[in-house]
Amino acid sequence: MTTPNRCPVDDVNRLVRALAAAAGVPPDDASVLADALVDADVHGASTHGVSRLNIYLRRIQKGLIDPAAELHVESRRPAVLVVDARNGLGQVQAVKTLERLLLLAREYGIAAATVRRSQHFGALSYYSNRAAREGMILLAMTNCEPAMSPEGGCEAFFGTNPIAASFPTGKGFPVKIDLATSIIARGNIIAANKAGRPIPEGWALDPEGRPTTDAAAALAGTVLTMAGHKGFALAMLVELFAGVLSGAAIGNEVGSMYKHMDRPQDVGHYFCLVDIAAFMDPGEFRRRIDATIDAIKACRRRPDAHEILVPGERSYRTAEENRRLGIPVGPETVRELRTLCQEYGTPMTLESPASKETSP
Amino acid sequence: MTTPNRCPVDDVNRLVRALAAAAGVPPDDASVLADALVDADVHGASTHGVSRLNIYLRRIQKGLIDPAAELHVESRRPAVLVVDARNGLGQVQAVKTLERLLLLAREYGIAAATVRRSQHFGALSYYSNRAAREGMILLAMTNCEPAMSPEGGCEAFFGTNPIAASFPTGKGFPVKIDLATSIIARGNIIAANKAGRPIPEGWALDPEGRPTTDAAAALAGTVLTMAGHKGFALAMLVELFAGVLSGAAIGNEVGSMYKHMDRPQDVGHYFCLVDIAAFMDPGEFRRRIDATIDAIKACRRRPDAHEILVPGERSYRTAEENRRLGIPVGPETVRELRTLCQEYGTPMTLESPASKETSP
Repeated sequence: MTTPNRCPVDDVNRLVRALAAAAGVPPDDASVLADALVDADVHGASTHGVSRLNIYLRRIQKGLIDPAAELHVESRRPAVLVVDARNGLGQVQAVKTLERLLLLAREYGIAAATVRRSQHFGALSYYSNRAAREGMILLAMTNCEPAMSPEGGCEAFFGTNPIAASFPTGKGFPVKIDLATSIIARGNIIAANKAGRPIPEGWALDPEGRPTTDAAAALAGTVLTMAGHKGFALAMLVELFAGVLSGAAIGNEVGSMYKHMDRPQDVGHYFCLVDIAAFMDPGEFRRRIDATIDAIKACRRRPDAHEILVPGERSYRTAEENRRLGIPVGPETVRELRTLCQEYGTPMTLESPASKETSP
Repeated sequence: MTTPNRCPVDDVNRLVRALAAAAGVPPDDASVLADALVDADVHGASTHGVSRLNIYLRRIQKGLIDPAAELHVESRRPAVLVVDARNGLGQVQAVKTLERLLLLAREYGIAAATVRRSQHFGALSYYSNRAAREGMILLAMTNCEPAMSPEGGCEAFFGTNPIAASFPTGKGFPVKIDLATSIIARGNIIAANKAGRPIPEGWALDPEGRPTTDAAAALAGTVLTMAGHKGFALAMLVELFAGVLSGAAIGNEVGSMYKHMDRPQDVGHYFCLVDIAAFMDPGEFRRRIDATIDAIKACRRRPDAHEILVPGERSYRTAEENRRLGIPVGPETVRELRTLCQEYGTPMTLESPASKETSP
């Protein structure tokens, strides 16, 4: 296995922007997409990062994503937006939705939006972190392509249906909650399968609904919900807000980004944005959340624990390191980027050991 | 052990109302309290039911709960309420808050409230089910007295910090999500301890932070979060909305209902109320959620599963049965109620086998 090459953040950003623009994404939107993808890599969530650019552009080429879709917004009530993303890029339409929500939340104290006819849109915490920088708390949810069975079932009905929220602090980083309601990200099973490793018990079922440690059988079967029926309940909560209330596809009707190259995904999102200043003085909020963080970190520790990290702290440290050293870009992603560059006549500006290896 | 006696719902409701009124709760508020407590018993959540009346009234007697507290509401923005419950009864103040929120959500499409200086207020789903009957979705959270350690820690910092939401359906019952972010309700450990039974591994740590199956050691130690760091993240989310943003006590500063008979609890709640009609036609929503329920229940089943139940379905069945047969009231609760009746000169109207047993 080749270790991923580290590339300067700005270089990757520039390349993603250039490729997206070449594929028909308007320049400002290409900037948004590049920023969102690179931010995921910076925070160590490479499965939501630049590795996804290839499939997005392939779907644009097939007409399954409209690179220049207008956001269609209906407003039946002052503090609510009902958004039709019209098969635009998930990240672009989500940021546009968030920008409108920010204005509403400032005015009313809280505002919410549903988004239908959207796509895979990367890491939820990209949006919630943006909101935190504005002194707001964004609670975000999305449904996604089916992978997970309801408790008692063994068919993939739910996606890994994540929930996220970020809270501004005075610590230099937001408290960032961002979790799939599955026991594990499906990517871990894919990785085990590639490496020929077994997976721990309790992660997945085979296609007949029996517990399995065989990664291939797990991929053919379903991932389990976190904490059994509790994860099922949370996945359901996400599906009802993001899928049912939004008017998007529901559960196993959501299209797969890689498998269904003949129809749009019709993913649904739910954003609920809270302006902290509507509840208390933001300085007072910061003082209170900082004291909470301090108290948690000062708790007596379990014998095997060196440190207590609050949610978001680890990825903040990763981000600091990646900004300094460059973001890891895997050899497969480098190969895909090079092919895209050739197709679009865009200069391939990322160097990588992998590129040397694959040369004759 | 004596099996709990079943008592007619209306009889229990009347008795709770009479006792609360005798303790100084205004008649309308006493009705609200009785309805909330009995509703928990009806739904099989007896730990949030009539068994709590005794401690509420004891705390009223000590001046720790103000039975006639006015709700103090500040509104800095149109769709937000900042509530000070002024140490009133949790259920009463929460219902009053919800009633105001309903008006705001109708107007703005969404509205939110924080509540500080509140108490234990029973089952979250009592409030979310009320909202569902109005065609609304209430997302509710509360912090509570410390029981659970953060991932890596072994001090009780968080309460079991539950999250709930109910969604109206055309099925005769709402989809009801109501879950503690702990791996198990603390009540299960208390029950195991009383019965001298061990608890399963993974539920709790002893006071030194080591995993334990000893129920007594677990009670002296801490309950674990559901799904490890994911449950920690969710408990944190609840603490930040319900504790930090509300201005209530935070984490291990929240008072214990039974242990601290010298100070108010200062519990904090967070309510976010969504009007479905602000997003889509309620009939369309009902059609979509019913189709979702049907699709989930029709999923292929695991070998050991007879039926797939959606969240809320089991407690709905329990409620049907309890309304028909009466609600189980345990012998200890019957004893407490009898003592309260004697103190307040209120006729004890519940018959129970336990009462016969304890007579000479």
